Amino acid sequence: MELLDVGEPGRAQVRLRVEAIGLNRSEAMFRAGDYPILPKLPTLIGYEGVGVIEALGPGVEGFALGERVCVLPNSRLGEYGMYAERAIVPVRSLLPPPPGLSTIEAASIWMQYFTALAIVHVGRAGLGDYVIIRAASSSVGIAAIQLTRWAGAVPIAVTRTNAKAATLKEQGAQHVIATDESDLIAQVNHITDGRGARIIFDPVGGPDVDKLAQAAAQEGMIIIYGGLSGEPTVFPHWPAALKGLSLRGWVASEIWNRPERFSRYRELIVHGLAGGHLKAVIAKTFPFEQVAEAHRYLESNQQVGKIVVTV
Amino acid sequence: MELLDVGEPGRAQVRLRVEAIGLNRSEAMFRAGDYPILPKLPTLIGYEGVGVIEALGPGVEGFALGERVCVLPNSRLGEYGMYAERAIVPVRSLLPPPPGLSTIEAASIWMQYFTALAIVHVGRAGLGDYVIIRAASSSVGIAAIQLTRWAGAVPIAVTRTNAKAATLKEQGAQHVIATDESDLIAQVNHITDGRGARIIFDPVGGPDVDKLAQAAAQEGMIIIYGGLSGEPTVFPHWPAALKGLSLRGWVASEIWNRPERFSRYRELIVHGLAGGHLKAVIAKTFPFEQVAEAHRYLESNQQVGKIVVTV
Repeated sequence: MELLDVGEPGRAQVRLRVEAIGLNRSEAMFRAGDYPILPKLPTLIGYEGVGVIEALGPGVEGFALGERVCVLPNSRLGEYGMYAERAIVPVRSLLPPPPGLSTIEAASIWMQYFTALAIVHVGRAGLGDYVIIRAASSSVGIAAIQLTRWAGAVPIAVTRTNAKAATLKEQGAQHVIATDESDLIAQVNHITDGRGARIIFDPVGGPDVDKLAQAAAQEGMIIIYGGLSGEPTVFPHWPAALKGLSLRGWVASEIWNRPERFSRYRELIVHGLAGGHLKAVIAKTFPFEQVAEAHRYLESNQQVGKIVVTV
Repeated sequence: MELLDVGEPGRAQVRLRVEAIGLNRSEAMFRAGDYPILPKLPTLIGYEGVGVIEALGPGVEGFALGERVCVLPNSRLGEYGMYAERAIVPVRSLLPPPPGLSTIEAASIWMQYFTALAIVHVGRAGLGDYVIIRAASSSVGIAAIQLTRWAGAVPIAVTRTNAKAATLKEQGAQHVIATDESDLIAQVNHITDGRGARIIFDPVGGPDVDKLAQAAAQEGMIIIYGGLSGEPTVFPHWPAALKGLSLRGWVASEIWNRPERFSRYRELIVHGLAGGHLKAVIAKTFPFEQVAEAHRYLESNQQVGKIVVTV
């Protein structure tokens, strides 16, 4: 890390005193060179968090000095840098924090809920639908469990071991399948009475997608929002043909790059937080000096929920 | 081939004097052992065609001796056998031939249109949509071109060489891309003014699906209805994520196993044939003694349209 004077905000930018940084998997991938945008070293990093506005660039309207704001991760990684005490960010990334949330909680919500909204927006989860949520203890996984329950659907949390099963149930998972310890397809068949899951939400990809396809319902959808396995995902030809399955790619920008969708779902998230349908779950916080440890913890997969770095 | 007395029809079956047999790729794959149902040798083969009813099994209603009928390929391959002079078939596979079609034409229509209806049923092709049709000169490809035009959408026929370009245009393709001779992605970008194709209809799969994904529009759909490449189809992770693409498996049974869909789309096909929107295109006919040559011709990919064997 180098010391960097971030300078003055340009047109349609503000400078923040950063208070809390929400960590995302994409940042660990970016750091490791596994993201489609390669970092130009030395690079800025980090795009989600909370800060207080301390300088306004030309043309900024609707925000005031001293105001606390959330930063939505809708910039390209490396373009701005929230892993900092001071950060320049574009005004299009600023949102007022939802009422009633702590600064740490407010740093945790946008990426996870906008990502998990795939279940609603493309999956159209509704009453009685079975939804398999893989990597369920991640921040997005927990958000998906909450959204699934809110939609009246049935969350089936998929995790590797039983270590987190009780916690996932406390977080709203109606069923938990530990793939190292039991047979995914048999378990899903048992839970769904042989029908399979209509929606499967997966950040891992790779060879196990074939099992997910076998656990899917007729005309089901597998939403793939990451490639954490690091292995190619082979299209599951025969189950997909015989059951009419879709494999659907997803990133949250599909919502926030479209103004109408963005405002509609943003209101839904705020409403869900206020009504108790949604709740920020913080796995652990780290002080800014320990940001490297925070990344190691993120990659260790021990957490349940979001990792936040406080500044 | 062995001589086989097909005997008398059982309950809910009829015996046909076969007049014409429509050939399908799935039969060549079945013969070669590349289909998910492996043949138990000696096996029956063939499931589409036209014949005259010459015996009614117990419980058959609504069909009469001497009536000419179409056989819908809705049985499992190997279960019944239309590659024959006499065939036992289940009454659930019988349909009256659409009016005005020759016997040969009537043997060519159901598999191709019910398969190509994926463009309408799952793709929701509509006015102005660009539809890429890969392997466009196959019987299903030609059917897809016709359905696309009827829906007011724009068919882009994809074929390997320019040898069939003129014929494909005569058959209704608005654009033809010969992948051995030009760059698919650049051509699609040119045709669609950079927007890409909203629907892609592909029986080939394999490594070129990555190019198809690059040629797809935002929130586009790649419908995969076969695996002719013989190679795995890798899910195109980043274009799928960044454009919100779906890869959708498809077989025609998704229509004909559902009574409401089946009757609705069957009426649509009959109506389309009567109105001139759809038209049977016969590539070549072979006499029954040359059924092996007919299979070789099918696998040679020289044809444009359906191959029919007359008995």
